[in-house]
Amino acid sequence: MTDNLQVYVRALPRESVSAEHFGIREAALPRLSEGEVLVQHHYLSLDPYMRKRLADAVAGRFPLQVGDMMMGRTVGRVVESRDPAFQPGDAVLGWGGWQRYAAEPAQRLEKVDPSDGHPLSAYLGALGRPGITAWLGVVSVAQVQAGDTMVVSSAAGAVGSLAGQMARHLGARVVGIAGGAAKCQALVAQLGFDAAVDYRAPDFEQRLLETTPDGVDAAFENVGAAVLDATLNRMNENGRIAVCGLISQYHSGAAYGYRNFARVLDRALRVTGFRIDANVPLHEKAMVDLRTWLAAGALRPWETVVPGLEQAPAAFVAMLEGRGMGKTLVQLT
Amino acid sequence: MTDNLQVYVRALPRESVSAEHFGIREAALPRLSEGEVLVQHHYLSLDPYMRKRLADAVAGRFPLQVGDMMMGRTVGRVVESRDPAFQPGDAVLGWGGWQRYAAEPAQRLEKVDPSDGHPLSAYLGALGRPGITAWLGVVSVAQVQAGDTMVVSSAAGAVGSLAGQMARHLGARVVGIAGGAAKCQALVAQLGFDAAVDYRAPDFEQRLLETTPDGVDAAFENVGAAVLDATLNRMNENGRIAVCGLISQYHSGAAYGYRNFARVLDRALRVTGFRIDANVPLHEKAMVDLRTWLAAGALRPWETVVPGLEQAPAAFVAMLEGRGMGKTLVQLT
Repeated sequence: MTDNLQVYVRALPRESVSAEHFGIREAALPRLSEGEVLVQHHYLSLDPYMRKRLADAVAGRFPLQVGDMMMGRTVGRVVESRDPAFQPGDAVLGWGGWQRYAAEPAQRLEKVDPSDGHPLSAYLGALGRPGITAWLGVVSVAQVQAGDTMVVSSAAGAVGSLAGQMARHLGARVVGIAGGAAKCQALVAQLGFDAAVDYRAPDFEQRLLETTPDGVDAAFENVGAAVLDATLNRMNENGRIAVCGLISQYHSGAAYGYRNFARVLDRALRVTGFRIDANVPLHEKAMVDLRTWLAAGALRPWETVVPGLEQAPAAFVAMLEGRGMGKTLVQLT
Repeated sequence: MTDNLQVYVRALPRESVSAEHFGIREAALPRLSEGEVLVQHHYLSLDPYMRKRLADAVAGRFPLQVGDMMMGRTVGRVVESRDPAFQPGDAVLGWGGWQRYAAEPAQRLEKVDPSDGHPLSAYLGALGRPGITAWLGVVSVAQVQAGDTMVVSSAAGAVGSLAGQMARHLGARVVGIAGGAAKCQALVAQLGFDAAVDYRAPDFEQRLLETTPDGVDAAFENVGAAVLDATLNRMNENGRIAVCGLISQYHSGAAYGYRNFARVLDRALRVTGFRIDANVPLHEKAMVDLRTWLAAGALRPWETVVPGLEQAPAAFVAMLEGRGMGKTLVQLT
């Protein structure tokens, strides 16, 4: 058994995040206390919300400080256990952070049943927090119905790519918003989106109008700023906007001024911010649907897998800059 | 029986509305067709939404054109009827517009039962569309609960003054936002608001912070722009904002840029635009509560009554500029 390796915060970003904001350090393998479990991580999940935790410009809920290890969701196998509920070899989900091994209190771990045939990485994607988040936004918050037109931003991201597929499966017409022509083509060709619009293109607003000829009934918002402002203008009467993320605002401290907010009144919209951890009672219901849809082939998970903890900072920056497709994972074994 | 008198649109305003945008003209008393009813108006209701109908900068839903008679809600008595359901002398609510008499199709009229002891004007206020609108926002949209802190803007207006009293009756702590110290004092002294803040004061944001020490759980928004932006910053987790009006944006075509929209995500807010006519199935339930609360003295109607149709344009401008208190009515008899 080798020693542990960790990625920590070397400096807090002011605006853009770069690999220089992170450091890598060796650490001794943690000694277990009673009730703790040592987990060897197979995959680490990299997610947009982590940008918010690296806050100074935008205050995060649990901000990270210089010197802290980066936090994150992990999946792996038990190496050693001082809790009777876990045995070596058990597959577990946890909050192990950006490191190879973690000693976690047993009650923070969740067992994964690998007999269902899904790879461990699925529990950080379609069967994990991105899947549950997409379900909450599409089913519970935006209440997408057959015949609706739904727009999803950051559509090639982990959550957006799942949300769009779910809405299509529920009978909606789905228009993705993503950065760059390649992603837009892939959304249509590989994931079956009805259309996709490049928000970086100079004719973005015109293209959004053309691809939503009957207006927009539901929006799954991950980006914010000009993307959301343009979407507001396309909303139909009684439209619903599920605000899952505003990633374009995490990177810069400057607040964006939303100029089309009056559509909320004109079109009687319902705009709802939501977070996965505030909706725990719905997670079980979500998981039932996610397993069913995945088994039926209605959800096709996209993954960008980067090998080695040393690559995590660069992969995180790439994800924030929209260079990944689907779920970004670091493989640690 | 004298001839009729009407106020019409002489010119569409570009920004501020003034009395010069209106003309007054004599007209013959309308001749009734089968199924129509001639009503002599006792009161005409003047309301902020009319500013939106005078649209060029902001498109209204049913825009008025130059030469059109101004539209509006009226209460009066039947003079002559060519419909069996109405008899001369019946008290009726209608959409008679800015004129002394109207010939209305019977199905557009609603009988009022004056035996309940309320003056006819109440049916344009606490027992009318302002009352129902306030009820929808407080009870159905913002779902105000005992113990909540609610902020209401345009708190001295027809809808706001009722919404604030309703929320207090339901056990909320209510902070009004209004223009000028006199209105703020009256809200606390006469209507029992817990506090009131002058949005024109240079220390508005600081005062809003001081008067909402536990944050804001529900907001009843009538104003928009800087008032709503400041309110967004005070919202608590899972707060609800009922967007009833954005009057500060009707006057000017320039869109306001909302800089604190990110609170929708940070605090998991639900922001809902609503209109009275999209919620007709709830009106009956609202009326039951409104009658009960009015009879119990929980609602104290405020009225600004202006005599004579000739005064309607000036009274309308005064209302838009926030110089009235409570419901603005024109008395026509």
